[in-house]
Amino acid sequence: MKQIEGGITAAKGFEAAGVNAEIKYKNRNDMALIFSERPCVAAGVFTTNVVKAAPVLWDRYLIDNYEEMHAVIINAGIANACTGEEGMGYCRQTSQAASDILNIDVSSVAVASTGVIGMQLPIDKIINGISLLKDAKGNTLEHGHVAAQSIMTTDTKPKEIAFQFEVDGKTATIGGMCKGSGMIHPNMCTMLCFITTDVAISKTLLSEALSNDVVDTFNMVSVDGDTSTNDTVIVMANGEAGNTKIKAKDADYDEFCKALHGVMEGISKMIAGDGEGCTCLFECKVVHANTKENARTLAKSVIKSNLTKAAIFGHDANWGRILCALGYSGVNFDPYKVDIWFESKAGKLKIVENGISTGYSEEKATEILSQEYVTALCDMKDGVEEATAWGCDLTYEYVKINGDYRS
Amino acid sequence: MKQIEGGITAAKGFEAAGVNAEIKYKNRNDMALIFSERPCVAAGVFTTNVVKAAPVLWDRYLIDNYEEMHAVIINAGIANACTGEEGMGYCRQTSQAASDILNIDVSSVAVASTGVIGMQLPIDKIINGISLLKDAKGNTLEHGHVAAQSIMTTDTKPKEIAFQFEVDGKTATIGGMCKGSGMIHPNMCTMLCFITTDVAISKTLLSEALSNDVVDTFNMVSVDGDTSTNDTVIVMANGEAGNTKIKAKDADYDEFCKALHGVMEGISKMIAGDGEGCTCLFECKVVHANTKENARTLAKSVIKSNLTKAAIFGHDANWGRILCALGYSGVNFDPYKVDIWFESKAGKLKIVENGISTGYSEEKATEILSQEYVTALCDMKDGVEEATAWGCDLTYEYVKINGDYRS
Repeated sequence: MKQIEGGITAAKGFEAAGVNAEIKYKNRNDMALIFSERPCVAAGVFTTNVVKAAPVLWDRYLIDNYEEMHAVIINAGIANACTGEEGMGYCRQTSQAASDILNIDVSSVAVASTGVIGMQLPIDKIINGISLLKDAKGNTLEHGHVAAQSIMTTDTKPKEIAFQFEVDGKTATIGGMCKGSGMIHPNMCTMLCFITTDVAISKTLLSEALSNDVVDTFNMVSVDGDTSTNDTVIVMANGEAGNTKIKAKDADYDEFCKALHGVMEGISKMIAGDGEGCTCLFECKVVHANTKENARTLAKSVIKSNLTKAAIFGHDANWGRILCALGYSGVNFDPYKVDIWFESKAGKLKIVENGISTGYSEEKATEILSQEYVTALCDMKDGVEEATAWGCDLTYEYVKINGDYRS
Repeated sequence: MKQIEGGITAAKGFEAAGVNAEIKYKNRNDMALIFSERPCVAAGVFTTNVVKAAPVLWDRYLIDNYEEMHAVIINAGIANACTGEEGMGYCRQTSQAASDILNIDVSSVAVASTGVIGMQLPIDKIINGISLLKDAKGNTLEHGHVAAQSIMTTDTKPKEIAFQFEVDGKTATIGGMCKGSGMIHPNMCTMLCFITTDVAISKTLLSEALSNDVVDTFNMVSVDGDTSTNDTVIVMANGEAGNTKIKAKDADYDEFCKALHGVMEGISKMIAGDGEGCTCLFECKVVHANTKENARTLAKSVIKSNLTKAAIFGHDANWGRILCALGYSGVNFDPYKVDIWFESKAGKLKIVENGISTGYSEEKATEILSQEYVTALCDMKDGVEEATAWGCDLTYEYVKINGDYRS
């Protein structure tokens, strides 16, 4: 398995496009298409928020009830959440229009939206946008890149990643794109993420692979603790790699799972590292916890702590806040067994041993904390389980972005 | 029952003092004393954080094992948390010094600390401070006020409140002081709060009244979601009001509970309204929920949401974020039954009806949201239970304060 260039058009048989449909933005693209001529099996995980956006309900229905998927239509600017029956109607109309324009079944078109909650979609612009997307679509890496740019909202960078791997003697490819910067505290999955692969795999195993991996990837990311109404991850597999279809949990399945994990972990870190207003990717690795679930809970508690996030922004080795966040996580442990290190490309420094300061150099700690990718390593000395969570620092810019997002 | 001037010296027989012991600050008071010549029964609630500061462990031990309390010694600047056996030793030494200097039992002296985690206390300065406190103590309202100022850290205002009430034909008084601004997400109680009353009441009932009330007052406050290692509420009752001791849950007990609630709710709102860097007190009232516990969970989820808090700072009626925060709270409900109002002294406006925008005036909404005390009222239309939670907006100043708190 190796990382390669590209995103959703890296795998064979996938086309993409991004266009300006003027949904909300005037001078940038705000609609995207993912398309496979050959029918795909698809799997999805969606927000656990009780308030679910209309596209989430629509896609869940399609994936649960139909075998084949050909396309996803995505818009940025308006989330189509809290929009009632009218919003559900727009999902059906969008899929119907794509069905007519792209000559595919209405049940094979997923839809996804991101942006402001509570506004209704301008459906005429959406339908017009689908015609533009049809004309613009293509299978180059650049087409995938334009699509990744078109689904951004407060993101500062498009997010793409791809891997190649071997199954059944064939070279298969998997790639993904994602948007997500604010309202990021996935509980099932993150804002909008689309993964395409040319591997041949059964729908059941694709779904299982996705659900298993989300627990240690997207569900371990938090930018601001707010679980969105629109969180969506959809994986489409069209089988163009030519391998014998994966139908059992064999070596080929394991290989696919590794590649899927590569995409999902890579995208998770991109989301955290591009959190609204952030200056760094803040990772917390918990090792030697007594259970896997406790390791996850402890790591997430640290990267969610506003006080810790603000200290990371200030390059301040305020380890008391980390120990405090471990302490209120709900997990029981002996504080006087815990060791804590800070680590980045500037070095690694043990700052706490058995719950007490090591008398470390503040200067060195500040140097380590002044990098773009900072890790807090917490050794619980209480077992063999570990977990990693990803977040970011809390900055003036975060407040600015969210103080007047709608205006 | 009526509100009166004053704080911890409002009740008969209580003295207080505040002095500059130079623990950490140079030009302000940083130690305080609460003292009752007559022995008090005392009750306490403390942080549920697994990482408990030394004074929390010490006070819990005293209250669980001894009947009488005479004094509390408080310092600001250093939290005496994550300080191991050395830190526990300083608690014992502090109580011993107060015992010698004030001529009371060592087991009758509680201690409390707030400030930076991980640093050791300068015990010589603490002991010297106790002598200064002895000389400075007195029973005027001003003495209580100076004590309330002396325990502040990032607080911008001292926090005091007092009520008078009638029991058994006697006039009794209850008053309290508190500090708390950051690391505020009490789970049992808030940072440091001390309540004094001259009512005569059994220790058992005092303890029960405190524990019952904390659920709907301090536990409903969140400034930043970080539950401190030091959260402490101590109530002392010295019986000087002269009433027959309250030993049963009779009308006198109910009257005392109401007065205690007045103090604790008042202080809860003061803490939220003085949250680090905040410009307003943000209250969420949930009505017609199906259970009391769900009402509390829903209200807390809204006032904890960083995105909602940032929108409140921007005076932006971004109701989607409120509905979203209700949705990820863990409580199940029908989003298309929910109504939401914004309310302040500038008026009351229904912005959501049955989960959809009412098409309200944005201008009016902004006017309502531009006040110092803003309420979001959420009607779940699903039962008869209600709860209120208190928080504040999220501002640049919060990030600034916490980006370099230690320097």
